Amino acid sequence: MKIAVLGTGSVGRTLAAAFARVGHEVTVGTRDVAGTLARTEPDGMGNEPYRTWAQANPAVRLAAFADAAADAELVVNATSGEASLAALRAAGPDGLAGKVVLDVANPLDFSQGFPPTLSVQGTDSLAEQLQRAFPQARIVKALNTMTASIMADPRRLADGRHTVFVSGDDDAAKKTVTGLLEQLGHRDVIELGDLSTARGAEMLLPLWLRLYAALGTSEFNIKVVR
Amino acid sequence: MKIAVLGTGSVGRTLAAAFARVGHEVTVGTRDVAGTLARTEPDGMGNEPYRTWAQANPAVRLAAFADAAADAELVVNATSGEASLAALRAAGPDGLAGKVVLDVANPLDFSQGFPPTLSVQGTDSLAEQLQRAFPQARIVKALNTMTASIMADPRRLADGRHTVFVSGDDDAAKKTVTGLLEQLGHRDVIELGDLSTARGAEMLLPLWLRLYAALGTSEFNIKVVR
Repeated sequence: MKIAVLGTGSVGRTLAAAFARVGHEVTVGTRDVAGTLARTEPDGMGNEPYRTWAQANPAVRLAAFADAAADAELVVNATSGEASLAALRAAGPDGLAGKVVLDVANPLDFSQGFPPTLSVQGTDSLAEQLQRAFPQARIVKALNTMTASIMADPRRLADGRHTVFVSGDDDAAKKTVTGLLEQLGHRDVIELGDLSTARGAEMLLPLWLRLYAALGTSEFNIKVVR
Repeated sequence: MKIAVLGTGSVGRTLAAAFARVGHEVTVGTRDVAGTLARTEPDGMGNEPYRTWAQANPAVRLAAFADAAADAELVVNATSGEASLAALRAAGPDGLAGKVVLDVANPLDFSQGFPPTLSVQGTDSLAEQLQRAFPQARIVKALNTMTASIMADPRRLADGRHTVFVSGDDDAAKKTVTGLLEQLGHRDVIELGDLSTARGAEMLLPLWLRLYAALGTSEFNIKVVR
């Protein structure tokens, strides 16, 4: 499958490499291709320059948001929560129309320091905001409840015996995403229901952030024991 | 230990019976003792009349909130979120001063139907509201992330291999609660940190409620795999 991963941060890179590893044709989308390739210093999160990463991942192409999305059968929103609406707008409504859009972002607001709060919660979610802004896209929320390395390679933790949640209004889109998750090694995919159930998945983040601090590692995940 | 369990609903009853089973001296607190004992019909949640339950649990006393709290070394808030402040007020600041108050309630707002939303979230929590209202109480949040039967008897699910979270500002109070949880059979107690971490535990409820609907049972719990 042709997959566009929007976002050049650690989540975008880790997912892009994983999708390529299991045989997909992956293009990473960025706002400014020349700018992304020109950087020679680590980014604000300490990630190595994109071009260094790209040399180690030659199968993954880089393109502007619109070009990446235009070619893709499935689009992944791996941008930060605050950048998501702009990134999808840049990908273009035409680039998203009818396509499965896997939203892995969290609406984190770091303006008051750590831990961040949620910029949307309660009776709305980032996933629903994106769906309202792009009614022809088939938004599916998943993977936002764990760190990038476990999203991409769940077997690195307890041989994959932990849970990933899927929310969306389109059953076929959820099925496509579930298949993709299983390809990566996810063994316990729980379909929560329609896209409003993404509120619950996003509202796990405050607990996730406190666990991250208490455990001193991001290498953990939630398992629903039943 | 002398334990007062405030609340005569299923959470209060189930915890009261469990604490009595492991050897504690338990009094259930209610707003109106005569009224509670006079009821002959199931309550709004379908629980059998209190006096029927009390006949089957003769070791558990019933008293007014203030009387129950006055005698107790540890007070459990097992009332509904919306009733919690009034119940603790009825227990009296003197009845709570210096005591460990285990808050297992969730600030659920059912006014718009199912699923309920949270009446407090983000930068505050029910646990913190109670702590501010009763600064001399030593509030500890725990157990609010699972159904009553699993709170009280965690081994009924996967032999207890799942997680309970503890939040609080008072280390000795958290230690007392952790000991009590282990007595009930909890095997994975994670101390999240100060009482503000209760925001994360309470904000798990929207996901819990969607899982309840998706799985068709409340007999599940979260395990933090690490």
